[in-house]
Amino acid sequence: MEVRKSLSCDVVVVGAGMSGLTAAVELRRAGKSVFVLEARERVGGRTHSRKLDNGVTIDIGGQWVAPTQQRVLALAQRLGLRVFKTHSSGTSVALLNGETFHYEGVTPITDQESLEDLRQGTVKLEKLAASIPLEAPWTYPHAAALDRITFAEWIEQNLTTETGRWALNFQGPGVFSCETSELSMLHVAFYYGAGGGVDAMISTDGGGQDSRFEAGMQQLSIGLAAELGENVLLGQVVNRIDQDEGGVRVHTDGLVVSAERVIVALSPTLAGRIRYSPPMPPQRDSLTQRMPMGTAIKMMFRYATPFWRDAGMSGMALTDRQVPQLTYDNSPDDASCGILLGFTEGAPAREWWLKSRAEREARAVDTLVQCFGPKAAEYVEFIEQYWAAEEFSRGCYAGTMPPGAWTSFGPALSAPVGRIHWAGTETATCWNGYVEGAMQAGERAAAEVLKAGHRAQARAMAHSA
Amino acid sequence: MEVRKSLSCDVVVVGAGMSGLTAAVELRRAGKSVFVLEARERVGGRTHSRKLDNGVTIDIGGQWVAPTQQRVLALAQRLGLRVFKTHSSGTSVALLNGETFHYEGVTPITDQESLEDLRQGTVKLEKLAASIPLEAPWTYPHAAALDRITFAEWIEQNLTTETGRWALNFQGPGVFSCETSELSMLHVAFYYGAGGGVDAMISTDGGGQDSRFEAGMQQLSIGLAAELGENVLLGQVVNRIDQDEGGVRVHTDGLVVSAERVIVALSPTLAGRIRYSPPMPPQRDSLTQRMPMGTAIKMMFRYATPFWRDAGMSGMALTDRQVPQLTYDNSPDDASCGILLGFTEGAPAREWWLKSRAEREARAVDTLVQCFGPKAAEYVEFIEQYWAAEEFSRGCYAGTMPPGAWTSFGPALSAPVGRIHWAGTETATCWNGYVEGAMQAGERAAAEVLKAGHRAQARAMAHSA
Repeated sequence: MEVRKSLSCDVVVVGAGMSGLTAAVELRRAGKSVFVLEARERVGGRTHSRKLDNGVTIDIGGQWVAPTQQRVLALAQRLGLRVFKTHSSGTSVALLNGETFHYEGVTPITDQESLEDLRQGTVKLEKLAASIPLEAPWTYPHAAALDRITFAEWIEQNLTTETGRWALNFQGPGVFSCETSELSMLHVAFYYGAGGGVDAMISTDGGGQDSRFEAGMQQLSIGLAAELGENVLLGQVVNRIDQDEGGVRVHTDGLVVSAERVIVALSPTLAGRIRYSPPMPPQRDSLTQRMPMGTAIKMMFRYATPFWRDAGMSGMALTDRQVPQLTYDNSPDDASCGILLGFTEGAPAREWWLKSRAEREARAVDTLVQCFGPKAAEYVEFIEQYWAAEEFSRGCYAGTMPPGAWTSFGPALSAPVGRIHWAGTETATCWNGYVEGAMQAGERAAAEVLKAGHRAQARAMAHSA
Repeated sequence: MEVRKSLSCDVVVVGAGMSGLTAAVELRRAGKSVFVLEARERVGGRTHSRKLDNGVTIDIGGQWVAPTQQRVLALAQRLGLRVFKTHSSGTSVALLNGETFHYEGVTPITDQESLEDLRQGTVKLEKLAASIPLEAPWTYPHAAALDRITFAEWIEQNLTTETGRWALNFQGPGVFSCETSELSMLHVAFYYGAGGGVDAMISTDGGGQDSRFEAGMQQLSIGLAAELGENVLLGQVVNRIDQDEGGVRVHTDGLVVSAERVIVALSPTLAGRIRYSPPMPPQRDSLTQRMPMGTAIKMMFRYATPFWRDAGMSGMALTDRQVPQLTYDNSPDDASCGILLGFTEGAPAREWWLKSRAEREARAVDTLVQCFGPKAAEYVEFIEQYWAAEEFSRGCYAGTMPPGAWTSFGPALSAPVGRIHWAGTETATCWNGYVEGAMQAGERAAAEVLKAGHRAQARAMAHSA
């Protein structure tokens, strides 16, 4: 026997990640009463900060902020959160085909023909990205043709050297956490466009990996949740949303919340797992079947000091050993210890997650030693995170689109269905897939709800007049 | 306040489509007690028979049986269901670029170079299909390479003429109900392999469209459900499955069923929408994010007589007008009326479903008139069905795989997770996507459960000895 508690408010928000919390705060500012229902026992979604054994805070989820991510930076300032530049000075390392070599800049490629090929390919990609109408990629004049080919296919068609092609195919998983062969080229062009271009997204200094949060990026969510107080309800897994002319009823195992409208601030994949009454129209449901979450393993090794800096190294490495594929210096700003961050993304992440933690750890240490020398074996702590294993995320960094999804179902990505509105970074047109995108989407969904409310009010006044 | 009723049995089956019902009947025969929980108020899943206004029974879902589909034919015989050959004698019509022309055989192509190109491409495809290990496609020596390209890409690489490529790209949606650009080539090779080859699947006489059921194909499910009697519970939407060492508990809105094991006989997409405790491992969950259901509109026009037969026509047409793309003679065996069946599949189905019924109807009639003459406008009944709109199917004919899914997640398609076993035609190795595959998968899942039971019994006896 089960007794469900009933609550009511103006707007229910499903999901206390950055998108849902941003929407809720906007609505509260506009005078609306709000409840935020969060499945986990914490807020923050795909941002999650924790302390290492030595008390240093790290992020096992999203962690970086770019200078062009104005919403995130403004909120950090409002909440008094200190950000600091990612350490990136010094030489980087490439470990390819068993050979290690040092390089400066963004690519380890040295032969001129491949470099020129990569350059012209990247210019083409930048131009394409800049030409996509971000609010409606399916209206792009060549949308159908781009949505019929994969990123891998585009690379094959538009670059001519083996090394140049390798470089772009290698870069893909770092941005999308899946293989270039899994991505619609229209989605790739859209995504780079939304992030301000290829260079803006893959760069550390001045780009997507520019700066980090001293107290961890989850503090953004924790700060917003504090403003919402007891209106954020944790441990509430939403399993059903009913709507009719009178409003919506959002069901969890122990709760029914009635409201005028609901904002679902989840990835399309997770939003598709809720049961809706009346059922979702086919174009919306079909979309949620076609936006799988990326797969990435994030690892960190803690050392007594950032020893690589003494050797003039940036801590950045690029390897073909899969574990890891990419590394970054993730040490705290005061360098009170050294932390190397490693990523394994796309298909290798899926393969290596089936092995044991000890196997991954051994492989990674071996890679790091080859890249940074024997001191890389002298770590004092190792942690790893695989977001695909998290029941209430099921992947990261974001949902991605295979061929066909944008042109057949794109309009259903963010178009409201009656009283149900969609937020989440996957619906963003600015830094889609990032925290900045989550905030933009939350703001857009809140504005939609407020506008709908005004329309309803105007209608009611017209009737009573 | 809600009171859940409790039931218990040896094995719970989720889904009363042909796969779940087959599993349940097998388990009952082996002496197990079974409950089948079905979300709809009917059995049959993606088979659904209904009567037209004149009392003639037609199928708005799966309807055909091939001579090699031994399980379906044996069950039809056991249940006393009469099957009859699809009418296919006479000339077929192609309507391309506004021109109508008649042809015999499977393709309207006449120029020798294109014909030869299509022939050699089909031979290559047949060879490839025959070489895939159907139990484990990811172990195929070239699996990685095939899973990195789409069917469209393979066609581009392996055929040389524009017309030959067009023919294979046109054929794809007829088999997979999605575009060739959306499909992993490894999946395509597997799927044709499971169905016994390209020719076996696309042919009418002697192939996948060989025969139909006089009383409708849903009678197969209705017959099996009758044998299970009151152990098939309708209107039970399963929303949660818990498992632990003691067994499983399967939850619906009003019911909790306890059992030793559960067979989930749903498509992976729908299976992924159930909440599991403990949560699914990431490889299984990631798979369910990557197997979207196909999209097809099935239309039927009823006439006083199958008038096209008088003109020596088969009733089969192939058009580039999208609505429909393909037609078949779907008249009853006694020809007491004439029925033309039309399909719109893949991207055009999604696009045309957003328009009104009247628009689709008008477009289809115009196409049929061009193909079969002015009498095609004199229909007395029109019906249409779009399975993507059905809450408890969300597409047809089956779930398909984009690049990357088979090689990264293939083993999770049918491997049990603890006490949870997977059936459904998407897990079949013989006629995957068809009713025959649904039955094979049901048999396999039932055998798994029985074997697990024997192992448990053996362990218990060893302990007590």
